[in-house]
Amino acid sequence: VGGSSKSDSSGVSNSGESSKESSRCSTPVLDADRTDRLRDKMKRRIESGDHWFSLEFFPPRTASGAVNLISRFDRMGSGGPLFIDVTWHPSGDPGSDKETSSMMIASTAVNYCGLESVLHLTCCNQTKEKITAHLNKAKRLGLKNIMALRGDPIGEDWVEEDGGFNYATDLVKHIRCEFDDYFDICVAGYPTGHPEAESYDNDLRHLKEKVDAGAHFIVTQLFFRAETFLRFVKDCRAIGITCPILPGIFPIQGYHSLRQLVKLSKLEVPEEIMQVIEPIKDNDAAIRSYGIQQAVEMCKVLLASGEVPGLHFYTLNREVATIEVLRQLGLWAEDPRRPLPWAVSAHPKRKVEDVRPIFWASRPKSYIYRTQDWDDFPNGRWGNSSSPAFGELTDYYLFYLKSKSPKEALLQMWGEELMNEGSVYEVFTNYITGQTNPSGHKVMCLPWNDDALAPETNLLKDELEKVNRRGILTINSQPNINGKPSSDPIVGWGPAGGYVFQKAYLEFFTSSENVTALLQVLKKYEPRVNYHIVNVQGKNITNAHEMQPNAVTWGIFPGREIIQPTVVDPVSFMYWKDEAFALWIEQWVKLYEDESPSRMIIQYIHDNYFLVNLVDNDFPLDSCLWQVIEDMFALLDSPRATQEEGSQS
Amino acid sequence: VGGSSKSDSSGVSNSGESSKESSRCSTPVLDADRTDRLRDKMKRRIESGDHWFSLEFFPPRTASGAVNLISRFDRMGSGGPLFIDVTWHPSGDPGSDKETSSMMIASTAVNYCGLESVLHLTCCNQTKEKITAHLNKAKRLGLKNIMALRGDPIGEDWVEEDGGFNYATDLVKHIRCEFDDYFDICVAGYPTGHPEAESYDNDLRHLKEKVDAGAHFIVTQLFFRAETFLRFVKDCRAIGITCPILPGIFPIQGYHSLRQLVKLSKLEVPEEIMQVIEPIKDNDAAIRSYGIQQAVEMCKVLLASGEVPGLHFYTLNREVATIEVLRQLGLWAEDPRRPLPWAVSAHPKRKVEDVRPIFWASRPKSYIYRTQDWDDFPNGRWGNSSSPAFGELTDYYLFYLKSKSPKEALLQMWGEELMNEGSVYEVFTNYITGQTNPSGHKVMCLPWNDDALAPETNLLKDELEKVNRRGILTINSQPNINGKPSSDPIVGWGPAGGYVFQKAYLEFFTSSENVTALLQVLKKYEPRVNYHIVNVQGKNITNAHEMQPNAVTWGIFPGREIIQPTVVDPVSFMYWKDEAFALWIEQWVKLYEDESPSRMIIQYIHDNYFLVNLVDNDFPLDSCLWQVIEDMFALLDSPRATQEEGSQS
Repeated sequence: VGGSSKSDSSGVSNSGESSKESSRCSTPVLDADRTDRLRDKMKRRIESGDHWFSLEFFPPRTASGAVNLISRFDRMGSGGPLFIDVTWHPSGDPGSDKETSSMMIASTAVNYCGLESVLHLTCCNQTKEKITAHLNKAKRLGLKNIMALRGDPIGEDWVEEDGGFNYATDLVKHIRCEFDDYFDICVAGYPTGHPEAESYDNDLRHLKEKVDAGAHFIVTQLFFRAETFLRFVKDCRAIGITCPILPGIFPIQGYHSLRQLVKLSKLEVPEEIMQVIEPIKDNDAAIRSYGIQQAVEMCKVLLASGEVPGLHFYTLNREVATIEVLRQLGLWAEDPRRPLPWAVSAHPKRKVEDVRPIFWASRPKSYIYRTQDWDDFPNGRWGNSSSPAFGELTDYYLFYLKSKSPKEALLQMWGEELMNEGSVYEVFTNYITGQTNPSGHKVMCLPWNDDALAPETNLLKDELEKVNRRGILTINSQPNINGKPSSDPIVGWGPAGGYVFQKAYLEFFTSSENVTALLQVLKKYEPRVNYHIVNVQGKNITNAHEMQPNAVTWGIFPGREIIQPTVVDPVSFMYWKDEAFALWIEQWVKLYEDESPSRMIIQYIHDNYFLVNLVDNDFPLDSCLWQVIEDMFALLDSPRATQEEGSQS
Repeated sequence: VGGSSKSDSSGVSNSGESSKESSRCSTPVLDADRTDRLRDKMKRRIESGDHWFSLEFFPPRTASGAVNLISRFDRMGSGGPLFIDVTWHPSGDPGSDKETSSMMIASTAVNYCGLESVLHLTCCNQTKEKITAHLNKAKRLGLKNIMALRGDPIGEDWVEEDGGFNYATDLVKHIRCEFDDYFDICVAGYPTGHPEAESYDNDLRHLKEKVDAGAHFIVTQLFFRAETFLRFVKDCRAIGITCPILPGIFPIQGYHSLRQLVKLSKLEVPEEIMQVIEPIKDNDAAIRSYGIQQAVEMCKVLLASGEVPGLHFYTLNREVATIEVLRQLGLWAEDPRRPLPWAVSAHPKRKVEDVRPIFWASRPKSYIYRTQDWDDFPNGRWGNSSSPAFGELTDYYLFYLKSKSPKEALLQMWGEELMNEGSVYEVFTNYITGQTNPSGHKVMCLPWNDDALAPETNLLKDELEKVNRRGILTINSQPNINGKPSSDPIVGWGPAGGYVFQKAYLEFFTSSENVTALLQVLKKYEPRVNYHIVNVQGKNITNAHEMQPNAVTWGIFPGREIIQPTVVDPVSFMYWKDEAFALWIEQWVKLYEDESPSRMIIQYIHDNYFLVNLVDNDFPLDSCLWQVIEDMFALLDSPRATQEEGSQS
């Protein structure tokens, strides 16, 4: 986005599990009132016969691996998983604050990607205090679901400890004892019996104990034949296990990963599969293709059995094979319905959040980060007094807010050497048009926009190109919409049968000369156009004198109140201003050497340009904002205007 | 109104003084934050050079006089007075709870008619405790302004009391001392000097004392020559009185009332006026016409002087002459802008109120009465948990909620003798069409609608007539509106430059046979149409399963949040149901003798009919509600349907 759009182009959503459902009361719903538990979502889906899928990931090893995994969350989240889960490896400091810890990855999935998430937790060789501390931290971070596991003993000579955690059952009991009903608990099932269990029957009894201790659902170890799972379910039901049992699906993605997994899990690969794979073991593409086909066939049998409400995928942190299996099964949400025009955070505290300032439209994670300490959220309303303080700008620079591109790539996109302000105009223009720059590179992102242009913004492409070329450096925009169906693939959001609306919005940096002319022109557009114009020092010019928010996106739905999820809020604009100006420095200036002309050009823009936002209130008419800009240039081009301008300044 | 409309047809509003201005915060603004003081309104109007008028009334002598006066408040309120004031007569028990007391009349003007009001208060021969009690009561009732007067001493032998209230100045000081800055205070000025003052200059000094003690503006005694007032203002300014001084205007309305007033106020009528009046003293029309002309001429001089920000009218509780003077001066708001589609109460506590259930659209005073004890109001939101309890139905039967028509008139309209349910259908139909009934009378009101059909409802007249004729007894309705300008004379409301929207709404009583067929038909209209169907026992059938409110009127305005002032709220519908059914009994059944057939017919309807409301959510399309009703009749008319119905019941 970037000259650009309000929509989180990843389209992340809890598809079909709108977290809006219970957010329309006048007082915030706090933790105590949680009505959107994972177990309840499962229950509803089972009752309506609506199959789901879930995705398992393991924590990454490096920070850049974490950045990649999180953008994978965004992409795979758009397909509509009911939940994702993150594994726990005691040797990897899984409960720490490191960017790569299980705890932080799961927290990011919940808070920033809006995904219902399950955090694994193993108890073997752990003290109760340590476990309780992990659980408290998880709760504080907004995690609501735990996969309770024993974990692998460290060393060969593991013996049961009295009063310690010897089995997952102990952990389940501990969670229920210390946290009552707060967490939804998942436990593991072994369709062929746990490798260390005395017998299959004995293992089944262990599973029954885990469920009886308070687990809410079961995810199974992977298996290779549908009948293995179906017999297991039958056996579970026979001994009185009634909770959902989700089959663990492992699409074979390569010969070596299969070998390794089989070794770790002590599973046997059936003869019929080995016979196909062995001959093609060096042909990755062929194996992947077979793996997809095999998984699809097995899943079809499982779903057809009527015993399987949802499928759990071991993704190995890859996306291609799993998505392809889900596509072929018809479970992947091709056109995810957005409950709101922005990605809803899955943190229980943020459930009531149903309005945000438009400014962070292209940086939603930054908005979530900077508002994470709020006690409650403007519940459909922004008033003068209702904007709590935003988190400090100085510490917002989290790893997942950094650009994903390395410095060299940024220089290639934004210019190894800038000649003048015009060079900057060119970068913005190339971002809009998607054309390659003189050095042959496409501008895929800008400091204010991590991703390529949103589909909605494409509607404005020609106009945006024209104005960027002349130094109206657009960083956010949306077209006016006068009642399109809520199912519209580009601008739609919210429940079926509704209508969505927008006021045209345009936000850009531009020179003080332009601003002088613009202010002259804007007099003609009162009260149709609202504006806020501010420079880095905070000099603020506006015609919104009451400091009231202006609703710029809203929806009307059957049997509901009006929802107005996006506003131009004068109070938060001053916080956004700091961030928007800082991005010139943090992301662009720092690419260049001290005292270099390129550096001085960006610094000059940072110091002297204004940040402008314009709203055309007359949403049923064609947007007048382009005419405003055109009038501004006409005034600048006329000799008389230059005189007037001179006499004003 | 009666098959019928959501709008308070009186169009009462604080025209130009929208009480919406400061109501868009997320927390209710309580008394302490009052920003809409009368003094501030005056200041803004003076700054913008926008002349105002105000109206003085005296309390009525009888309950039926009170009912008439209050409907006069509604009518005269629509012309846009800045405030009204109510006089205080110590001999008339002015502070009591009687329907006719100054206190209750002023309270009604504030709370039910939405008028900024000034309560007079005299202090002569009163204890401080008594005065404080009056002021506390006034504050509790939502009154914010006091006209502080000495009042006439009782008996001839009045002497000053030490420590008592001897002058209005004492009262002003007492109010400021006991209530700090809470009340805005007005005092009286005498352009020719108070009749009991030692001298004109002495009286001016008294006035200065009153202002210095804390009064905010001055209203003068009546006078007959503009120069009298202008000299008075000049003299006031000369001794340092700087607050607004409003001339008291008395349009001569009759020979005898003029004589009486002159006697009471010890004023002299100028020779040139007496010369005109004496010869026509028996011709009321001629005198009134002269009085209007004389007042208009004088007011023109006053306004042209630049010394007069507003005109204060002594109405003598009549409306024709004052309205005519105001019309000729161009001060009467011919097309009052409604800040919201319903009349906003002027009680400071209700400032934040910006949403109401549609059900009381034709009975807004009843809604205000039944919600008067609420601590706060749903601030733009109705959620399951946010509807406080409604006041009891048993005590809602205030004098000003009773029908204004005497029993005989009601019988003439609603039928001396009813033959069957069809007779009732005819009454409803005649109300809609405006045609006379067989006994030659027009049906001007119904129990659910005090007034004639609203202009908006006229848009639906043909359809309403058709369905009422067949037993769909409509009591409330609104057409769908897809973005009409907020200035639209019929459906517009809110600030300039906005757009208003509505979902089509229809509410009616109908037989259980009809309801059975209707429910059958409504399946075809899911989820387009939301319905609530309930009988007097509270049997409730609905497809709005989440008990969420459905916004049915909303507006989009420049630089603002969305305003959604009218909702179909399932929770409050159950309170309205009790009221709606009770009106059959209270207002209609009671007209007839015990055991009479007429009585039994209405009682039967009360006991057996259902109250139905329908919302068509698809506001951009033509309303489908008429088609729903037509389908219902088609189903009832088909032989097969009758069988189905039989097998269902």
